[in-house]
Amino acid sequence: MLYNPELHYLDNAATTIVAPEVADVIDKAMREHWANPSSLYGPGARSEEALNAARAAVARTLGCKSRELYFTSCGSESNNLAIFGGVQTKTFGKGVVVSGFEHPSVQRPMERLAEMGYDVTVVPPEPDGRLNVDKMLAHVNRSTVLVACMMVNNETGARCDVEKLAAGVKKISSRTMVHVDAVQAWMRLPIKLANIDSMAISGHKIHAPKGIGALYLSDSLAQSFRPPYLGGEQERGKRPGTENLPYALGLAAAATRLAGNMKARQEKVRSLNEQLRAGLAAFPEIEINSPEGSVPEVLNFSENCIKSETMLAFLAEKQIYVSSASACGRGQPSHTLAAMGRSPLAIDTAIRVSFCADNTPEDVDAFLNRLEDGMKHLQRIHK
Amino acid sequence: MLYNPELHYLDNAATTIVAPEVADVIDKAMREHWANPSSLYGPGARSEEALNAARAAVARTLGCKSRELYFTSCGSESNNLAIFGGVQTKTFGKGVVVSGFEHPSVQRPMERLAEMGYDVTVVPPEPDGRLNVDKMLAHVNRSTVLVACMMVNNETGARCDVEKLAAGVKKISSRTMVHVDAVQAWMRLPIKLANIDSMAISGHKIHAPKGIGALYLSDSLAQSFRPPYLGGEQERGKRPGTENLPYALGLAAAATRLAGNMKARQEKVRSLNEQLRAGLAAFPEIEINSPEGSVPEVLNFSENCIKSETMLAFLAEKQIYVSSASACGRGQPSHTLAAMGRSPLAIDTAIRVSFCADNTPEDVDAFLNRLEDGMKHLQRIHK
Repeated sequence: MLYNPELHYLDNAATTIVAPEVADVIDKAMREHWANPSSLYGPGARSEEALNAARAAVARTLGCKSRELYFTSCGSESNNLAIFGGVQTKTFGKGVVVSGFEHPSVQRPMERLAEMGYDVTVVPPEPDGRLNVDKMLAHVNRSTVLVACMMVNNETGARCDVEKLAAGVKKISSRTMVHVDAVQAWMRLPIKLANIDSMAISGHKIHAPKGIGALYLSDSLAQSFRPPYLGGEQERGKRPGTENLPYALGLAAAATRLAGNMKARQEKVRSLNEQLRAGLAAFPEIEINSPEGSVPEVLNFSENCIKSETMLAFLAEKQIYVSSASACGRGQPSHTLAAMGRSPLAIDTAIRVSFCADNTPEDVDAFLNRLEDGMKHLQRIHK
Repeated sequence: MLYNPELHYLDNAATTIVAPEVADVIDKAMREHWANPSSLYGPGARSEEALNAARAAVARTLGCKSRELYFTSCGSESNNLAIFGGVQTKTFGKGVVVSGFEHPSVQRPMERLAEMGYDVTVVPPEPDGRLNVDKMLAHVNRSTVLVACMMVNNETGARCDVEKLAAGVKKISSRTMVHVDAVQAWMRLPIKLANIDSMAISGHKIHAPKGIGALYLSDSLAQSFRPPYLGGEQERGKRPGTENLPYALGLAAAATRLAGNMKARQEKVRSLNEQLRAGLAAFPEIEINSPEGSVPEVLNFSENCIKSETMLAFLAEKQIYVSSASACGRGQPSHTLAAMGRSPLAIDTAIRVSFCADNTPEDVDAFLNRLEDGMKHLQRIHK
């Protein structure tokens, strides 16, 4: 890593290291902006102004109006808020269409909707890991209330053309709500909100701390939106609870920090990804799971030889940190690879490497060298 | 205030100033504990250990088991989680009993339950501002699924004997869930959890930042608890979202900081309260709204002469900050005073002073002097 050459943190899809300048902003805000933004006196008004400035800064990175952006405590909350709020708002039908490689904070609410009597259609990814948007659209009709899809898959980095999906949905049924989980896409890819009604983003994937996220809710959806959590008038009545101003300012600082150099970061990360792919090509057993067109920040592969957990522990001895699947699954087998129909061996030996722009070519070298050692010396799975 | 003699912040029921040592803990954690607590490698395990230590420290102040304590993003979230989760868990009936002076994050969910077909009985406080627990119990029967009551009212400081209430509920119906909003009570009063199934607490009322809270869920309730928000396995599957470790550590630091000197703080705040009452006694128009037995941290009164907003602005010119009602209401008239049946004049001229142990006798003097000026010079309401 740029800051610490001994550390090779290659699990940035799980979480990122808080940027020192973001931590500085939060620390200052914690000590200075002590007043409740809802209080009417001067310090309260100054807290509210700071909150609104943070909101505007984050909204700018999404190209939405400031008032369309609602702060939450995390991406999972944003997803829950959109899904459960969405079906309470859109009461004209029971149809729901969702991709088969969503984050648990979309998957589990969808299972709950099915229990509640919704007709939930899950469209799995193709065997190559990409989602066929036309297959999703084939299930949408005029009684579909909600379509939800990840923009970038957290396990493989697969990109989904959510813009095409959203335009297609609206063509079939203009009143159907389209929700996008953009937690892994935000600040990595340009985002166009046309035809998208709600979008979840999170701070801890962009070098802000864990504990802050946001939800974009289009003005037209917000007018009738019935939020599932109720309380005070914070966040225009859509999300109760006294606002976490320090982290909101931190989220804005983290987004602003990355907004200026998206191109340069992309090139850097793309070159790290290519370096890794070139190194992996030396191992004939290895199969790449990330489909064509994936974001360069994530490279998922199966080494097909050694159990992931064994390899991960071996890598960790040298401060090389990667993961086998989503961190939220705590070492459970990858549900995305399962949805792609990969073999049990491929799933059991999967490794996800995920970059940020603070990674260096030395991190990739360290990973490849240690991987080679592991492939030579660790106990192989008996096939 | 102890830290700044020019500032007279007397609105500690709205929010408190983050203690510098709490901010220090958070700042350190943001920079050091960067790993996701769900990640399996060393730094992730260290994050998880730190999270569990924070959990144990907070649990200690409630006298519950560490595993009965779930971190949330705020008191409002804790209340929503308990109420909506509670009724999904307790499906044997439709009866709900709640006090008439709850926080909006309990009130609004109760209104939603009524819309959903629950039979919600709201028991208003007595004209003196106290809640008659026996009147609540009179509405409880064996088909009551949930009873909810604040431990300390946020607007008047009225104490409710939730221990007696909870014991009474369980005597009538052992399977009925008892939820207590203890946001204004925690670290001010000793708390006994016997017969209480769930309890909401919040950080920003005890000198931790806004954006962290917790929910106590008894082990026996947790076994069958169906959470309303779904996702990853964080917080034992009861509350999804990557954990906000820096603030969890801050919450623990704030609680630990106060746990050691509860008696000394109480005496200090009691003496400030008495000083304020003695000063207010000089104004014959003033009526105290806080009932007998209220916590000394809150004193609510009506000056019956000048509109609250006029008086509050006049006080604020001298950095004396108080409020007219709950901050969450953003200057809306007090719903607690309305529930007590107070006159429109009393409601329109209400002032809530709320102390913390960092307040000084000079703060009270500054308030009383400026109040006197205001009573003499500001435009009176025409009766």
